[in-house]
Amino acid sequence: MKSVGVIAEYNPFHNGHLYHLNQSKAMTGSDIVIVAMSGNFLQRGEPAIVSKWTRAKMALNAGADVVVEIPYPFAVQKAEIFASGSVAILDALHCQSICFGSESGTIHSFYKTVDFLEKNQDTYNQYIRHFIKQGVSYPKALALAFGALGKKEDTVDLTRPNNILGYHYIHAANRLNSDIHFYTVKRHTAEHDDDHIHDDQIASATSIRKLIRENGHLESIRPYIPETTYAEMEAYYQSYLHWHEWEDYWPYLQYRLLTMNEDEMNNMYDIEVGLPYRLQKAAEKSSSFRSFMERVKTKRYTWTRLQRICVHILTNTTKKDMETAGNKPQYIRLLGISAGGRAYLNKVKKDVSLPIVSTVSSFPEDLLRLDRKAALVYSQALSETKRDRLFTLEYAQPPIMT
Amino acid sequence: MKSVGVIAEYNPFHNGHLYHLNQSKAMTGSDIVIVAMSGNFLQRGEPAIVSKWTRAKMALNAGADVVVEIPYPFAVQKAEIFASGSVAILDALHCQSICFGSESGTIHSFYKTVDFLEKNQDTYNQYIRHFIKQGVSYPKALALAFGALGKKEDTVDLTRPNNILGYHYIHAANRLNSDIHFYTVKRHTAEHDDDHIHDDQIASATSIRKLIRENGHLESIRPYIPETTYAEMEAYYQSYLHWHEWEDYWPYLQYRLLTMNEDEMNNMYDIEVGLPYRLQKAAEKSSSFRSFMERVKTKRYTWTRLQRICVHILTNTTKKDMETAGNKPQYIRLLGISAGGRAYLNKVKKDVSLPIVSTVSSFPEDLLRLDRKAALVYSQALSETKRDRLFTLEYAQPPIMT
Repeated sequence: MKSVGVIAEYNPFHNGHLYHLNQSKAMTGSDIVIVAMSGNFLQRGEPAIVSKWTRAKMALNAGADVVVEIPYPFAVQKAEIFASGSVAILDALHCQSICFGSESGTIHSFYKTVDFLEKNQDTYNQYIRHFIKQGVSYPKALALAFGALGKKEDTVDLTRPNNILGYHYIHAANRLNSDIHFYTVKRHTAEHDDDHIHDDQIASATSIRKLIRENGHLESIRPYIPETTYAEMEAYYQSYLHWHEWEDYWPYLQYRLLTMNEDEMNNMYDIEVGLPYRLQKAAEKSSSFRSFMERVKTKRYTWTRLQRICVHILTNTTKKDMETAGNKPQYIRLLGISAGGRAYLNKVKKDVSLPIVSTVSSFPEDLLRLDRKAALVYSQALSETKRDRLFTLEYAQPPIMT
Repeated sequence: MKSVGVIAEYNPFHNGHLYHLNQSKAMTGSDIVIVAMSGNFLQRGEPAIVSKWTRAKMALNAGADVVVEIPYPFAVQKAEIFASGSVAILDALHCQSICFGSESGTIHSFYKTVDFLEKNQDTYNQYIRHFIKQGVSYPKALALAFGALGKKEDTVDLTRPNNILGYHYIHAANRLNSDIHFYTVKRHTAEHDDDHIHDDQIASATSIRKLIRENGHLESIRPYIPETTYAEMEAYYQSYLHWHEWEDYWPYLQYRLLTMNEDEMNNMYDIEVGLPYRLQKAAEKSSSFRSFMERVKTKRYTWTRLQRICVHILTNTTKKDMETAGNKPQYIRLLGISAGGRAYLNKVKKDVSLPIVSTVSSFPEDLLRLDRKAALVYSQALSETKRDRLFTLEYAQPPIMT
């Protein structure tokens, strides 16, 4: 049984994802697709529009066989850590290959890029430090350092978001001494973030979420998503009367920022000197998340890094919490599984070095604490009984079976 | 110019309070009434139904001359500390007398009680420790210890809530070496807490709030409040579309309890060993503040003590914060003042040892931090722009002038 791994957020699952899923199977000749998916909060420091359970269902309905959660300490992180956690999980589950979407579309160029940077590592790191000292953001410094290394042939453009992730996946596999083979599918839409639609069937997740918010209903996104996604999005709304967005959490973020003391602020993960005061002053003056973000954004702090910091403040995730979580995932939380996925897991599970968590209650509570807090925070967007109903899933919902 | 001090919460101001205000002036022959009033959170660990600004207006409209705020570290506290903070403020403002409502109604008996307990202090304290060891609550232990001291003549019944407060007022004045004279007015309604109405013009604040909640409008409370209170209650509702209650804060309390770590819980003011786990487990299972409280209540922890602890958790008030605040108020925050009150303050202010805060912006931010956090938390019951509008008053509202 051959398996291919996919790293995804499915926010929500759309036709581009479906194309990628099918291509992943076809290109690698795999029987089984394993998805490592972000939980309720995403890599860019945003709440997912619907819960991880609904997004896992979307993936299963579209042909995924196993959906596992990227644990919070790896999901809400910069590309490098996000990649290392995701790849480690897929490696632990014995995927023979990983297939990712990229702007480049040529796997050969990725391997070349990783090789090139590993050979020029010291100079590269010197450049990175140099540019960071000039006050630019970390991702910007990476791109500038890469450019400063001079002319290189056949490498990928490391200013594009999906190329960056792809690069980090391969780099992470190297550091794990993993023999996973990588494949890449060229993305149909121009940009991960693009909120314009250029195609009559393919639109980015960003533009799809924008359509939902602008129209307040799902009809307008129908051309861009599988029918199964439509049904799950509708079911979620009927059940919770809500699609999640950052503004839902603003009252909680403002409340936290304005009641925390200095020590507590400084303990928060990824917070640097000077930022607490800046965040607290802006929170006092802002009446929406958007206006708050516009106040705190600087050249040094990217929008996404600040969003991640805000998620960590919401979930009360400290530097110590992240240290304790370590630099490799310590468990694999199973969100959903197909019949094929069950057969696969039964075959490989004796060789899986990490515990696979199906029933939360039989697992040490402490290890899952950060995911649990993220689930609690995520559910605060809902009103009363719906809030409790959604949070209860975190410990009561068994993996979804199809 | 003679002044009498009154210690109050006015939640909301009703005919009983008006009677007490008028009696206080008449009994003491005072020109000026100074009210030390709780802010947005009250002694019993509850949010006030309307903000401190509206309650200050009610008091001014009914004849009060100066309304000052009992700072948070003294307002949300057991009777002894509440009394010591309130009396210290009225003493600093040079009130010649304090007049309080009580079940007893006989000031002579209060002085006797204070004398008796000061004389029997050691035995009394031994009894208190004895009963606390048996697992009863602190107020219950006080009452039992008082009973155990045997037969005494002409003392007040220290199982009644207003008698207890009155006792602590006099006791606090003694410890301050203050020469304030005390007076007491017998309360019309049987109990502070009584939610039944026995009179056609006098009802307890508790029963008035109950009527508002049950009926959803103010018409039913009209017989029990001055016309000016009616107008202020209506204006508050028109402005904020809300009357505050504990359930409004439940999502925030649950969120805090389920995202705090053990150290943070143990740092919270008035938290004792064993309580964090109990609170967190109950928060997980409860979908309302009421059901939460019913789960955590024990013989040892009274409902009001637990409510106060919950307010401290909401405002993130630590043991260290309360230590820093000290055991005497460090400032007097002026909420409202009449023409008479201005004349009085102009006369005495050179002899007032504490700074009088009229403009928050000209005062060290750190000292007012706990009041500010309380105001922030209090405003979280409201939606979006109303929340910000109410919170802004905390630093932008000058004292109300009449």
